[in-house]
Amino acid sequence: MEYPSIAIIGGTGKEGMGLGLRWAYAGLNIVIGSRQEARARLAADNINNKLSIKSVTGMENKEAVEKSDICVLTVVHSAHQQIIESLLDVLHGKILVDCTARVDFQDPKPPDRPSAAEQAQILLGPEVKVVAAFQNVPAKSLIKVLDQPVDADVMVCSDDIQAAEQVIRLANIAGLRAYYSGRLENSNIVEGLTSILIGINKHYGVKNARIMVTGIPDPNSSDRK
Amino acid sequence: MEYPSIAIIGGTGKEGMGLGLRWAYAGLNIVIGSRQEARARLAADNINNKLSIKSVTGMENKEAVEKSDICVLTVVHSAHQQIIESLLDVLHGKILVDCTARVDFQDPKPPDRPSAAEQAQILLGPEVKVVAAFQNVPAKSLIKVLDQPVDADVMVCSDDIQAAEQVIRLANIAGLRAYYSGRLENSNIVEGLTSILIGINKHYGVKNARIMVTGIPDPNSSDRK
Repeated sequence: MEYPSIAIIGGTGKEGMGLGLRWAYAGLNIVIGSRQEARARLAADNINNKLSIKSVTGMENKEAVEKSDICVLTVVHSAHQQIIESLLDVLHGKILVDCTARVDFQDPKPPDRPSAAEQAQILLGPEVKVVAAFQNVPAKSLIKVLDQPVDADVMVCSDDIQAAEQVIRLANIAGLRAYYSGRLENSNIVEGLTSILIGINKHYGVKNARIMVTGIPDPNSSDRK
Repeated sequence: MEYPSIAIIGGTGKEGMGLGLRWAYAGLNIVIGSRQEARARLAADNINNKLSIKSVTGMENKEAVEKSDICVLTVVHSAHQQIIESLLDVLHGKILVDCTARVDFQDPKPPDRPSAAEQAQILLGPEVKVVAAFQNVPAKSLIKVLDQPVDADVMVCSDDIQAAEQVIRLANIAGLRAYYSGRLENSNIVEGLTSILIGINKHYGVKNARIMVTGIPDPNSSDRK
């Protein structure tokens, strides 16, 4: 198997759907996870129908993680701890890609530490490789035009640099530029950016303010420096 | 007087020189400040010669601030507290634009709170309007081509939104896009970004990784969304 299979926990939400859509479009093996199997199947069918494929499946969260190599967690912070605790045993030895930001959407401000991703690492222990990524990519940017690159960049933080590089490749496959942005502690800053972007959205009356990183030559493209 | 006059403290360094150059190019009244008057004058002459003008002056820090409406502080964090303490009385009632990031360049990681800009506000008290800005704009981007927009964006944080708006206008005059990014506490995140960008520079072997904010229609341009 060339590519890892990916379980998207919270895959019935917009962000998870957007990532699942892009990875499935690229030919990856995607399992949508939900607390309710029926909802997971509905979301999977939604992606299958959009892409005229049949490969995306929907399962209850735990089964989805068991069946996959990598778990991508796209849930709101209020659900974060409970879901991780319910997946402790099935995540053992795997990579958890945590897309959660520890942010109060009503009152965005610098998040307290530990960040959501640090909380995940504490709960899961050293046998799970936690990689923080995708927090600041609007779902709308993912869903827009599947054969075009996404106009938002990804800062990838992890204490395990091989795991981070694997997530960077997955981001690239999904059409996103992604950069290794240091150890997991830096996820505090990246999750804090979510607060700033929410504030910018409110202040400027927009919906999808986002971040791009420039100044790094892209080996796959000559148009950005 | 249409535009405020600006004292650049630490104006002999690259970042201060870059900002001074751009503002002087745009016709603003610039005073370069340094602990040594001779060095300040040399830096001022440097800008004057580059632009074939004579208006930029150089003075000892305190005098520079006294003579100006707005003070822009572009010093490293190790010099930050001492310089602010030396300017306590002359800054009273003014805007201090703090470009400092609380970062260890050897070991960049999430900065402890308070951020440099919060430290400035604590030292200066409520009579000085501290605005955090420009921390993540590489000097090289400022100096490159003066009549082109700078390819790095500015996140502007302050508890005083009018002061922030004034700094956003000054950034725009210098050719930078700048966005109000919330209260001064958010400067922690923006200064933390400096850590991440230093790490990205090291990891990717580049020198000027930087951030752009997208998703906000620019009233002055139609080419970016």
